Amino acid sequence: MTTTAMITSHPNPTTDLNVDLLAEAIDAAAACATTCTACADACLAEESVAELRDCIRTDLDCADVCAATATVLSRRTGSNLGTVTELLKACVKACSVCADDCEDHAEMHEHCKVCAQACRRCEKACTELLRAIG
Amino acid sequence: MTTTAMITSHPNPTTDLNVDLLAEAIDAAAACATTCTACADACLAEESVAELRDCIRTDLDCADVCAATATVLSRRTGSNLGTVTELLKACVKACSVCADDCEDHAEMHEHCKVCAQACRRCEKACTELLRAIG
Amino acid sequence: MTTTAMITSHPNPTTDLNVDLLAEAIDAAAACATTCTACADACLAEESVAELRDCIRTDLDCADVCAATATVLSRRTGSNLGTVTELLKACVKACSVCADDCEDHAEMHEHCKVCAQACRRCEKACTELLRAIG
Amino acid sequence: MTTTAMITSHPNPTTDLNVDLLAEAIDAAAACATTCTACADACLAEESVAELRDCIRTDLDCADVCAATATVLSRRTGSNLGTVTELLKACVKACSVCADDCEDHAEMHEHCKVCAQACRRCEKACTELLRAIG
Repeated sequence: MTTTAMITSHPNPTTDLNVDLLAEAIDAAAACATTCTACADACLAEESVAELRDCIRTDLDCADVCAATATVLSRRTGSNLGTVTELLKACVKACSVCADDCEDHAEMHEHCKVCAQACRRCEKACTELLRAIG
Repeated sequence: MTTTAMITSHPNPTTDLNVDLLAEAIDAAAACATTCTACADACLAEESVAELRDCIRTDLDCADVCAATATVLSRRTGSNLGTVTELLKACVKACSVCADDCEDHAEMHEHCKVCAQACRRCEKACTELLRAIG
Repeated sequence: MTTTAMITSHPNPTTDLNVDLLAEAIDAAAACATTCTACADACLAEESVAELRDCIRTDLDCADVCAATATVLSRRTGSNLGTVTELLKACVKACSVCADDCEDHAEMHEHCKVCAQACRRCEKACTELLRAIG
Repeated sequence: MTTTAMITSHPNPTTDLNVDLLAEAIDAAAACATTCTACADACLAEESVAELRDCIRTDLDCADVCAATATVLSRRTGSNLGTVTELLKACVKACSVCADDCEDHAEMHEHCKVCAQACRRCEKACTELLRAIG
């Protein structure tokens, strides 16, 4: 709701991006960043940490890419659609890889299950925004 | 809800921080980071941008401090309470300054009004978490 | 020098990325992030801020993408080459767009001249790393 | 050198912060952020990862606080000295804690030795900048 309020109160009356798809992508990316950070830390505290190394790494990478994506998508002054498009592609990839990793441990670790869901939501939101950009 | 799920699924069964206060501080800081980024960009697109310079600067600083705070608070492996405490103090200060600036333009710019609310929420959440840490 | 020391002291003896190209890409991306942040702020303080809006926006986007790139490239546990590749492409794009914008004001504003150089260095380093990945 | 060039080319002719101390704090914080990220990842890849959990966590926290500090210090439009001061204190604390942790493993792990040096440099630079602010 706050995200939509910020988009619609922006002085630029029109946007090169659909408002609903944009708001969902911002919210999904911001939520995924925090969730991946928490999942990396929870994996680190597990007894089986040595087997979770790859998951921690893809969690941390996904958190960084999602945080950058949420931030860049929050800007609408001028237009930087080339950069937005490439970053969305990177975000889709980071989320897809991290979701695959987390789904492998979803039955064992609730935090990986929740994290995989956050990644899939963000992957979907960024894919749909990319499609709308054309 | 996701934030609480991540906290309660963490393998460390107890925490040196209250779960509800912690979840609210993480959510408030993450939301404030995104909102301040959007407000800085909306101010930049305003005709009166020259008069909004200070607001843009405090927005951007607040976004950076809030993003770091949300991320650090999302970790619960081991304990880094000294760093958490100092960072929470910095976040309270950044939010307080940014809210003051945004409230000055709240009647003129809806994005500053929404942003001031996000800052006050985060300022309150971090203050209460600090008090609980003692 | 510190970057190379960190790469060569990593327990993974081999890397899927060339050490010299990797170190240069990390250093160039980290330097570009800080420089773009400073350039956005210097543009904001210029009298002609209203004409520098697009430059500020591409500066800020470039800073975010470069910071994420420097961080992700600093990890070598396991392998996340798909994400690394897409992020490098996004970084090349963000740097190229920002350098174009800054070069337009390079004669007028020394900070834009220095920033354009930082962007071109990072664009080149990421392009060469991408080529080496194949 | 780039950092100093960006500070001196800023349209605000005077600064509330000493230029040399400011440039060193920005460079030290940016370098510490990247080094701590790399050290966390190197610790994660060590056979003894289970004993390095606390070090990984303080590395990651330090990276986040240092990155925010380098970014906020890079801005000089208007003044946000209250926030800068509190953030510098948080950065001194994060670096001090991380250096203590890394020094415990400095003889065993070269990456911890290099990281401890980066933390001590940043701790010193931020302490001196704080003292100059008064």
